[in-house]
Amino acid sequence: MNFKHRDVISIKDFTKEEIEYILEYAKRMIPYATGEKHTTLLKQQILATLFFEPSTRTRLSFESAMHRLGGNVIGFAEPSGTSQKKGESLADTIRMADSYSDAIVIRHPQEGAARLAAEFSEAPIVNAGDGAGQHPTQCLLDLFTIQTEKKNIKGKNVILLGDLKYGRTVHSLAYALALFKANLTLVSPETLKMPKEVIQECKEFGVEPVSTTNLEKAIKEADVLYATRIQKERFPDAEEYNRVVGSYKVSLALLQQAKEDLIVMHPLPRVVEIDPDVDKTNHAVYFTQAFNGLPVRMALLSLILGGKIL
Amino acid sequence: MNFKHRDVISIKDFTKEEIEYILEYAKRMIPYATGEKHTTLLKQQILATLFFEPSTRTRLSFESAMHRLGGNVIGFAEPSGTSQKKGESLADTIRMADSYSDAIVIRHPQEGAARLAAEFSEAPIVNAGDGAGQHPTQCLLDLFTIQTEKKNIKGKNVILLGDLKYGRTVHSLAYALALFKANLTLVSPETLKMPKEVIQECKEFGVEPVSTTNLEKAIKEADVLYATRIQKERFPDAEEYNRVVGSYKVSLALLQQAKEDLIVMHPLPRVVEIDPDVDKTNHAVYFTQAFNGLPVRMALLSLILGGKIL
Amino acid sequence: MNFKHRDVISIKDFTKEEIEYILEYAKRMIPYATGEKHTTLLKQQILATLFFEPSTRTRLSFESAMHRLGGNVIGFAEPSGTSQKKGESLADTIRMADSYSDAIVIRHPQEGAARLAAEFSEAPIVNAGDGAGQHPTQCLLDLFTIQTEKKNIKGKNVILLGDLKYGRTVHSLAYALALFKANLTLVSPETLKMPKEVIQECKEFGVEPVSTTNLEKAIKEADVLYATRIQKERFPDAEEYNRVVGSYKVSLALLQQAKEDLIVMHPLPRVVEIDPDVDKTNHAVYFTQAFNGLPVRMALLSLILGGKIL
Repeated sequence: MNFKHRDVISIKDFTKEEIEYILEYAKRMIPYATGEKHTTLLKQQILATLFFEPSTRTRLSFESAMHRLGGNVIGFAEPSGTSQKKGESLADTIRMADSYSDAIVIRHPQEGAARLAAEFSEAPIVNAGDGAGQHPTQCLLDLFTIQTEKKNIKGKNVILLGDLKYGRTVHSLAYALALFKANLTLVSPETLKMPKEVIQECKEFGVEPVSTTNLEKAIKEADVLYATRIQKERFPDAEEYNRVVGSYKVSLALLQQAKEDLIVMHPLPRVVEIDPDVDKTNHAVYFTQAFNGLPVRMALLSLILGGKIL
Repeated sequence: MNFKHRDVISIKDFTKEEIEYILEYAKRMIPYATGEKHTTLLKQQILATLFFEPSTRTRLSFESAMHRLGGNVIGFAEPSGTSQKKGESLADTIRMADSYSDAIVIRHPQEGAARLAAEFSEAPIVNAGDGAGQHPTQCLLDLFTIQTEKKNIKGKNVILLGDLKYGRTVHSLAYALALFKANLTLVSPETLKMPKEVIQECKEFGVEPVSTTNLEKAIKEADVLYATRIQKERFPDAEEYNRVVGSYKVSLALLQQAKEDLIVMHPLPRVVEIDPDVDKTNHAVYFTQAFNGLPVRMALLSLILGGKIL
Repeated sequence: MNFKHRDVISIKDFTKEEIEYILEYAKRMIPYATGEKHTTLLKQQILATLFFEPSTRTRLSFESAMHRLGGNVIGFAEPSGTSQKKGESLADTIRMADSYSDAIVIRHPQEGAARLAAEFSEAPIVNAGDGAGQHPTQCLLDLFTIQTEKKNIKGKNVILLGDLKYGRTVHSLAYALALFKANLTLVSPETLKMPKEVIQECKEFGVEPVSTTNLEKAIKEADVLYATRIQKERFPDAEEYNRVVGSYKVSLALLQQAKEDLIVMHPLPRVVEIDPDVDKTNHAVYFTQAFNGLPVRMALLSLILGGKIL
């Protein structure tokens, strides 16, 4: 298995075996992520973080990952003042970053931007979200969280909750969960249902997702509840939005109907989807999930930068 | 005395003995702060600098302090584009930074924000200013400057000049100077006088602050003149503002009436409070004071991060 | 030859021998710039990058240069939120950065800002562009590119193309090329011709620049075509602008009339001056030129910071 210099644009760029390898390696990264152990694996290597759209959580976790591995970081946190504003093409900006770094993390509002960037860069490109497109390291850390919390992904009952239509990262996650043979329950308002193509992809792996609007019923058998943000602007009127948000809010009352070892996940930032009261329960793993971004990104960066394995 | 993992929210979090210890340790940091000596005491540790309100001087001195100690830095310099803008709670943002770093420096426009942050973080929080609230490292570097310039704080005649009502950092400073038994003279316009509670606090340490509006008279006996910014918006009309600013301006003419070894301090940035002509005199220590932010913050960071003492 | 602690404000601050020394040293930096070799020459030294005007390419190349040499970086990428916004003088901001770093890179919209900064800083100042003024490291990397691509600068036919009136970096380049005895052809619209003083300077080195508006004719004998941006706002009407931009566009058709080994340069970012079709030809060296900013800035930083020579 060879990851050196590979671009990471979509979770589909990896085979199941490669994903398993990354998750296994990420596990070994945990003591280095917490700062308990130290390494200089990527000593004097430079990561460029190009955020054409701000995303503090993703950016800081990549930058922390690089520092934990002994490397350095250059870049920008938002597009104001970049050459793009002066009319420079994305290709030229990427060539520039390629000259000054060993790997590039790119976040961009336009779908396909990361794939385009990869065409113009010798340094490996990691897609940190391209608009409605892919966000493969989010998908990896989601899988990692389920695997470390539940020992296994296969056979687990996973609810994907919220806006399943427009949130494409949840499409990648559905694909990846099906690849790992989880049982999927899709809970969304009628107007925000998972697209047929994604369901078809899952079926190709032998997984038959169940669609429902009834969260209260679905929660009873679930091992994992994966909540996502429901964006106000998707709804024709505020009343309908409030009704949906209200009925899909993860609360203590809802969790009383769940298995004792159900885990609640969320990619964060959250707004109103999860009641803060849930934070103190054993169900809440979303903060651990956010932390998991660190060992997963450390594993990925060290693999594509060709550092010898720890 | 144990500082490891302690939050630094207010100067009142420290005993007099602890403050003395920090100042003593800061003195030993000077050759490392100037770059004359090198250390890797905080090697591979990560400081997160979360500036929800910009403050270049404070931010750069913390970042320089961390680098001088061999550590790394992640963070943001202003709130634009942070998850807070997407509606995330401060608690969730802090939890995120906690996952990705070993200590957190926070600057926030709202009073109490740093204390709140400390509740949600395992990593120690350092308050770098929370609105009208506390700014303990500013207070420490002010004490450090008086001590290094005048050998002692006890018994020194210190003038606090300017807006003593709204500028709460000057309240902390008055408290700390009284703790160290300096003699305090409070010079301000009638409308911007030091609040009674602060004066009461000083009295509890046996210090009786003298209040006056007459700077020319007070300057004659002073060892330290601590000037602060007088903000235009505190005044009902421009004429009154101009009159006050004019009469409290630190100029060469004023300093001719002062002791030869009077030192002039200012937290910076200054606007019109000190005439640039004063810069060349021996009275001016405000640039040294700004530099002192570095050894003081180095001392504090290495203590709370539990690096072994140099 | 001694570079330690020297300010770098204008290319004219260096003798011809000093420039040759820097270019020679920059060549030795290439394997360290690509990351093939590692060094910790500037270990624990701190570079402050103060960008009062954004310039991503210049900033990232300085920051990468510092990291490649084992050093650290603090600073800001744009002026929003700096103390200058609160009314602080440039002098005070520079004194602050001086306290917290070992060398300062400054980019400022006002001509003369870097020279002013140097008056108030003990740490060496590197001018990374001050408005319509100087940008000496751009000049050095341009010379470096010609020398590495064409073996020699002396006797080479160099076309300077575009806005030769307002773009002062091209004035410095003309000066430096004349110093190195290149033959200069100046191609610009009538209204944007090179000022007489610059031509006079070239003559003092025994170089007689030829001025023309005819690019098609000039290209035939050229060894180097240096294109610059033609800014729309320099023209009284859009029609005239379009005509000029059209006739000076570097295209495949134009290059068919050029020598086989002509090199095309551009300081970047480019907008419409060079057709992307040219990128794939052997003529295009502008991406290499951008990379060259790295070894050249590494050489300069290590010289002024007094690191021992590699």
